[in-house]
Amino acid sequence: MRVLAVDVGGTKVRAALFEGTEMLYRKEVPTPRAGGPYAVAEAIERLADGSFEVISVASMGPLDMESGWVIAAPNSPIGKFAIREPLERAFGVPVLLYNDCVAAAWGEHVLGRGKGMRDLVYVTISTGIGVGAVVDGELAVGRRGNAHEGGHIVVDLHSDLQCGCGGYGHWEALGGGANLWRVAQRKAREWGESSEGAGLALAGEMSPELLYSLARRGDPFALRLVDYLNSVHAAGIASLIAVYDPEAIFVGGSIFLNNEDLMKEKIEEYARKYSILGVPPIYRATFGQDAVLYGALAIALRPPQRA
Amino acid sequence: MRVLAVDVGGTKVRAALFEGTEMLYRKEVPTPRAGGPYAVAEAIERLADGSFEVISVASMGPLDMESGWVIAAPNSPIGKFAIREPLERAFGVPVLLYNDCVAAAWGEHVLGRGKGMRDLVYVTISTGIGVGAVVDGELAVGRRGNAHEGGHIVVDLHSDLQCGCGGYGHWEALGGGANLWRVAQRKAREWGESSEGAGLALAGEMSPELLYSLARRGDPFALRLVDYLNSVHAAGIASLIAVYDPEAIFVGGSIFLNNEDLMKEKIEEYARKYSILGVPPIYRATFGQDAVLYGALAIALRPPQRA
Repeated sequence: MRVLAVDVGGTKVRAALFEGTEMLYRKEVPTPRAGGPYAVAEAIERLADGSFEVISVASMGPLDMESGWVIAAPNSPIGKFAIREPLERAFGVPVLLYNDCVAAAWGEHVLGRGKGMRDLVYVTISTGIGVGAVVDGELAVGRRGNAHEGGHIVVDLHSDLQCGCGGYGHWEALGGGANLWRVAQRKAREWGESSEGAGLALAGEMSPELLYSLARRGDPFALRLVDYLNSVHAAGIASLIAVYDPEAIFVGGSIFLNNEDLMKEKIEEYARKYSILGVPPIYRATFGQDAVLYGALAIALRPPQRA
Repeated sequence: MRVLAVDVGGTKVRAALFEGTEMLYRKEVPTPRAGGPYAVAEAIERLADGSFEVISVASMGPLDMESGWVIAAPNSPIGKFAIREPLERAFGVPVLLYNDCVAAAWGEHVLGRGKGMRDLVYVTISTGIGVGAVVDGELAVGRRGNAHEGGHIVVDLHSDLQCGCGGYGHWEALGGGANLWRVAQRKAREWGESSEGAGLALAGEMSPELLYSLARRGDPFALRLVDYLNSVHAAGIASLIAVYDPEAIFVGGSIFLNNEDLMKEKIEEYARKYSILGVPPIYRATFGQDAVLYGALAIALRPPQRA
């Protein structure tokens, strides 16, 4: 079967054509930041090339699976946008729509290192924080497709930092890449460190790339902030362990994939402090930056019971 | 079918004999606090009266469903105790073992107001905080029976209050009845209020009953602490909404059932602040204090797919 797998993320829309599990090509464009509710579907149309029997879209959420719309993507200025109907009209093939991390979790279960695991969790640490879970061998989807907006669990109930979604104290608000400059600015004020990193943070100039490169150069503020962020991720992961009791946790997303050396061990250490059930193995996502594309493929190849 | 339904809680072991859904009797004893790993099973044996075809036990967790043991109940000084094997030996009938709140969630789905809901969450606010969930029409159980130790999600990553389970910052550590005296003592120090309630809290003499009765009499410290606890419960509930996107949340447990008037509206208000997906209806548990007994019954009457 030929599948057009699509990953709609906060910064990029990526598409790959698969023949079985073989990737024939992969293309990407920046996620449209204007152009209304059909701009994303149009970007996907331009990426599609060759013939395919099904389009499987894995998108940032929250979704409304009934209508085939993404209803309120916190990291997208477009907000609400249509997926299923415009693509069905343009290509005349079935269009599947799932949450990106829900799909990536299924990808680990069907095609990745998580084959044979009845219970696993996928986490992305990137622009936002996303979560998907396989529970008792089935993909947990939820009534609107939004089990699991696990990036929006509350890890700090006292935080007045607002998430892109509007909520407070969320893992994503404190640990997602999009909000990092705000978190860095506050921590620079709170801690009163003086270093190159603290100066940049105070000026509102902090990005994940900059932070981890400063940390590698030994900047004390950057090291402290990386440590704090590791505790944020550990708290989130410990909550997921409490909720899902998984056999393994797979972590993807550019922030983690590019900085595993500064993150993984500390996250494991702090998660042991936070977790009720111990900490299962934490693995790098089997398909790395393509985790969501392979997830979308897995959805098409072996549709979850609730298709 | 005659079912002996059993609820093993932090303070009481309760048993009820059901003929179909009709309760023939209900009895209870205090949960053994000594006597080794067979004391709880022996207490259940003494409660059993009459004939039955199956024993369905819903217990505080965490469990190991494979072995039929409760492996580390944070609110029990006994710790590890056996359920399945000693009861099977004593009565010669099959013994089912599920987490108490997992069972109660199934009870809402099969017998309660949650009939027909594909996605619902049950929460108990009592000695501890417990959570169960029905996801996509199926009971989420987890590999060892511990999806969902949702009471042990981290709601305050900065908290140094240790949970009975050993973890930090947990919903149960901050919002469970067993730890209330510690939370009250710290808040009394932190806030520096002077009132009858603050004095009792400083002396380490605070219980849920006392707290809510002081709040009803207008004690300013008690009112403030009730408000803080409502924010703790709201943060936990918002995290559950993010993870499960349920159609409704059912709340049981003695603290909530006895003090709904001081809790429900504020929890809903704060949850709206914390939640990404809005707040679905929050209902009082259909079977009130018997939620876990009816949950155990539901497990026996309609075994979840992963029995």
